[in-house]
Amino acid sequence: MGLIVQKFGGSSVANADRVRNVARIITETYRRGHKVVVVLSAQGDTTDDLIEKAREINSHPSKREMDMLLSTGEQISCALCAMAIENLGCPVVSLTGWQAGVRTDSAYGNARIKRVDAERIRAELDRNAIVIVTGFQGINKYDDITTLGRGGSDTSAVALAAALHADLCQIYTDVDGVYTADPRLVPGAMKLEEITFDEMLELATLGAQVLHNRSVEMAKRYNVNLEVISSFSGQPGTKVKEVAKTMEKTHISGVAKDKNVARLALVGLEDEPGIAFKIFSLLAKNNINVDIILQSIGREDTKDISFTVVKSDMEAARKILEEHRESIHYDRIDVSDNIAKVSIVGAGMINNPGVAATMFEALFNAGINIHMISTSEIKVSVLVDAADADRAVQVVHDKFYGELTGK
Amino acid sequence: MGLIVQKFGGSSVANADRVRNVARIITETYRRGHKVVVVLSAQGDTTDDLIEKAREINSHPSKREMDMLLSTGEQISCALCAMAIENLGCPVVSLTGWQAGVRTDSAYGNARIKRVDAERIRAELDRNAIVIVTGFQGINKYDDITTLGRGGSDTSAVALAAALHADLCQIYTDVDGVYTADPRLVPGAMKLEEITFDEMLELATLGAQVLHNRSVEMAKRYNVNLEVISSFSGQPGTKVKEVAKTMEKTHISGVAKDKNVARLALVGLEDEPGIAFKIFSLLAKNNINVDIILQSIGREDTKDISFTVVKSDMEAARKILEEHRESIHYDRIDVSDNIAKVSIVGAGMINNPGVAATMFEALFNAGINIHMISTSEIKVSVLVDAADADRAVQVVHDKFYGELTGK
Repeated sequence: MGLIVQKFGGSSVANADRVRNVARIITETYRRGHKVVVVLSAQGDTTDDLIEKAREINSHPSKREMDMLLSTGEQISCALCAMAIENLGCPVVSLTGWQAGVRTDSAYGNARIKRVDAERIRAELDRNAIVIVTGFQGINKYDDITTLGRGGSDTSAVALAAALHADLCQIYTDVDGVYTADPRLVPGAMKLEEITFDEMLELATLGAQVLHNRSVEMAKRYNVNLEVISSFSGQPGTKVKEVAKTMEKTHISGVAKDKNVARLALVGLEDEPGIAFKIFSLLAKNNINVDIILQSIGREDTKDISFTVVKSDMEAARKILEEHRESIHYDRIDVSDNIAKVSIVGAGMINNPGVAATMFEALFNAGINIHMISTSEIKVSVLVDAADADRAVQVVHDKFYGELTGK
Repeated sequence: MGLIVQKFGGSSVANADRVRNVARIITETYRRGHKVVVVLSAQGDTTDDLIEKAREINSHPSKREMDMLLSTGEQISCALCAMAIENLGCPVVSLTGWQAGVRTDSAYGNARIKRVDAERIRAELDRNAIVIVTGFQGINKYDDITTLGRGGSDTSAVALAAALHADLCQIYTDVDGVYTADPRLVPGAMKLEEITFDEMLELATLGAQVLHNRSVEMAKRYNVNLEVISSFSGQPGTKVKEVAKTMEKTHISGVAKDKNVARLALVGLEDEPGIAFKIFSLLAKNNINVDIILQSIGREDTKDISFTVVKSDMEAARKILEEHRESIHYDRIDVSDNIAKVSIVGAGMINNPGVAATMFEALFNAGINIHMISTSEIKVSVLVDAADADRAVQVVHDKFYGELTGK
């Protein structure tokens, strides 16, 4: 007997059959005696179709009107899901973002939830209704409709779970949990029973697209118990919480790969104070986010600085640095986008200094060259050639999990 | 310099080109110095598509959730139209029914507007924005979305015009005004420059589907000047107002035809007091609306009562009357749905007793038999065989307008 928030993504409600499947999951939860609040995304390609309709009319529509347009997608899926639940004989009501009291700031297209005025939801729960809420949207102080941007429906679900002090927030997706590596790429990848918020955050940043970072950050801040679970398999998923059971044997929670990365190296920088500050403040001023930074001593009195950016920023970063060649003083710029970042994540590695070494050993044994290394308390990332990336994930995964999976 | 409400129907905004056309009409009005409030229907088949989506999931969805679903159609067309207006460089904002303050009762699917809290619209007009409002919808006292049922967008437009004391409410459609007869059927049918509310009401009831009755009734009540006008032709339309210019020569405003009619005749009723009351209260109790009623003396001490209903009610009416044969006392029931009602409407006929006679003469000359006659102050209706209906409209129209159109 608890209050459960269940969120279903666009592929889970893509057509009438899937809406019926979702309705079945919801009513089964309800009939086990729980109060249920449901958050839905728009059906399948609805949002893309609406964007296309807008582009036909105006190549640069205002974000305010785009939000007015796009918010209809979730309203449609919510009304349809409510009808499917009616068909199964349970009391139900669907609510838009404004009806559900989701108040946001005014950043149309990328709004942040400021608070949830949950009186209406509580009243509907008190009369024992299942409450279906449109994800991805809210209203601002002008009573205008806003959308939350990427990962918005996950964030809506966590925000509602926090506001309602829900016992659990289940994120239903088309994967059945968080794995130690991408199961489509890595034979032997295992589903994790539990993972900490911090580990999940590192994994999300590293390209494991299970949960959007904003939602995990919010869940951590308000201590909302999350579960990532499949809409299709019927199996238990992965719990995301403040403290997870430690996995004695492994220390790491997962291996992740990110190919959307490019490296720039400034070679032969004069060894003068403040040079790193000069370079990275210049890039920041131009809205270029830098990920890994490595500084090394070069020949004579010079040094080299290498760093990574997302691929789409590579040329812009090179151009800016070339324009400031005079003031920065360097010999040359090397760039490469034929690389990938492979990372291991795990709260357990803090107390196990051998973890990074184990990773390097696996890569060395496989003849994979490491270009850069970056470590944090719960993460080790390496840059390797793009061609080596999949094999790197596999050998690192085998090294840590091999004995568990019998390899 | 006035405040103009412009309403565009579903076919006027059916695709990107038509939305652009509507945006052009709106911005031209705005640039002539008027304040403009626009009411839109959903695009083309959107509403039907949404209904189909619902039926796939639940053959009897609740009306509350249907309204939640269907109201998205107008939200989409309004956002798209706002984007098209942005493209033409005018300030614009789209508003849903609740944002525009359209408050209704709680009859989901067929709600009535109770009031319009127009502060938001007035504030937007004060900052010189064009305001686009979703037709067909509002919210009830529970803050739930309601839709207005058939003709709802016309009603939305008139309600907004009344609340804002607009100088004119233009109803843009795919016809370019109100004609003296259906121009697709009757050669020589002429567009009326002006018509009174009462004449428009009679014409609407009689099957001239230009404006929905609810909107005309509301316009009459609040004395809102209406204009029926084409989105495509660019020509002036027909003004609908309290007092119209009299057309000296013709006395009638139009000829209309309604084929959705069936006649029942109770023959050989005993001539006892209260028999008409007994029959028609019985039908009313069963929600059967009766239109024309004719009572005549039969042979001996009996009489006959004939009346018309819409075709779909014919069998139900017959069944009810047969079930009560004992208490009503009649010889037999004749029914026929192979008939049509042809009517002439015109405020001018009150003072011209010869109008009805002129109509009958035209029909007699054409050899068309009249089964029933019904008259009101501004209307004469006759029942004729369905096969004669189109010819009846033509000869009556020619009789009254022939000299004007040169026949």
